Amino acid sequence: MSARPNILDELPGRACSIAAALEVVGDRWSLLAVREVSFGNHRFSEILAGTGAPRDRLAARLKALVAAGVLERRQYQEAPVRFDYHLSKAGRDLLPVLRALMSWGDRWAVDEPPVTLVHADHEFRPATVCGTCGEPVHADDVHRRANEPTATAAG
Amino acid sequence: MSARPNILDELPGRACSIAAALEVVGDRWSLLAVREVSFGNHRFSEILAGTGAPRDRLAARLKALVAAGVLERRQYQEAPVRFDYHLSKAGRDLLPVLRALMSWGDRWAVDEPPVTLVHADHEFRPATVCGTCGEPVHADDVHRRANEPTATAAG
Repeated sequence: MSARPNILDELPGRACSIAAALEVVGDRWSLLAVREVSFGNHRFSEILAGTGAPRDRLAARLKALVAAGVLERRQYQEAPVRFDYHLSKAGRDLLPVLRALMSWGDRWAVDEPPVTLVHADHEFRPATVCGTCGEPVHADDVHRRANEPTATAAG
Repeated sequence: MSARPNILDELPGRACSIAAALEVVGDRWSLLAVREVSFGNHRFSEILAGTGAPRDRLAARLKALVAAGVLERRQYQEAPVRFDYHLSKAGRDLLPVLRALMSWGDRWAVDEPPVTLVHADHEFRPATVCGTCGEPVHADDVHRRANEPTATAAG
């Protein structure tokens, strides 16, 4: 029995990991802050400039991302004491989400892509394959199977 | 010269397709509404139940998603007149974003994944490859190259 409550019991609507993920990063400033840190912009002033977020909102989002384990806050200077932000493993795991959003934005939300991603000597276009079998997948190839919840002390 | 303003000129911070994408879908209810429609829940009442969104917020988000071309609103009944929602091509293109969020949520935001995605007879785990060369990619393999804006009448 887990000491912390199951997040899925606390969210409205369908029990779904997408909703649980959005509870952590479902805010534009949060994802843009993760983007900036992934670009090597670790300091508050850099993240502020790169995102264009209101200062107070950004400070709140960074605090929440640290609490959620997406960012790590590290002291980089003693006098005066200063901290910067780094991606945790969970934060680095958001890069596929950012790449998928960038790919969608390039196609549907901008006139011309402002940035091209380069892989070796050619354009990188993210494509999804099934990590289990290695084959390309299309929307109709994938089906959902509900998992039985594990029995709890109450169940 | 495009008649509509360039969205990238209107957004704060870095000119980036991720920010442009989040301007359209950077709201938890929007992405959860797209999820519901992708599951075949086309009617307002179904999307309301599946997302658990407040009714007014959901109505506003659906209207915005139709205006942005992510959802299509179609009449399915004459008396009384009723409409439902379907994914456009841009809406179907959001499925990789939803899959990436689900994968991240399964790993970092829930105790146990409530749903397993199945591809043929095995578990589907989304993996990203370079669509140009077909090779698996890691975060360090991909680099950014800024594109020159196309000259405009003013430039």
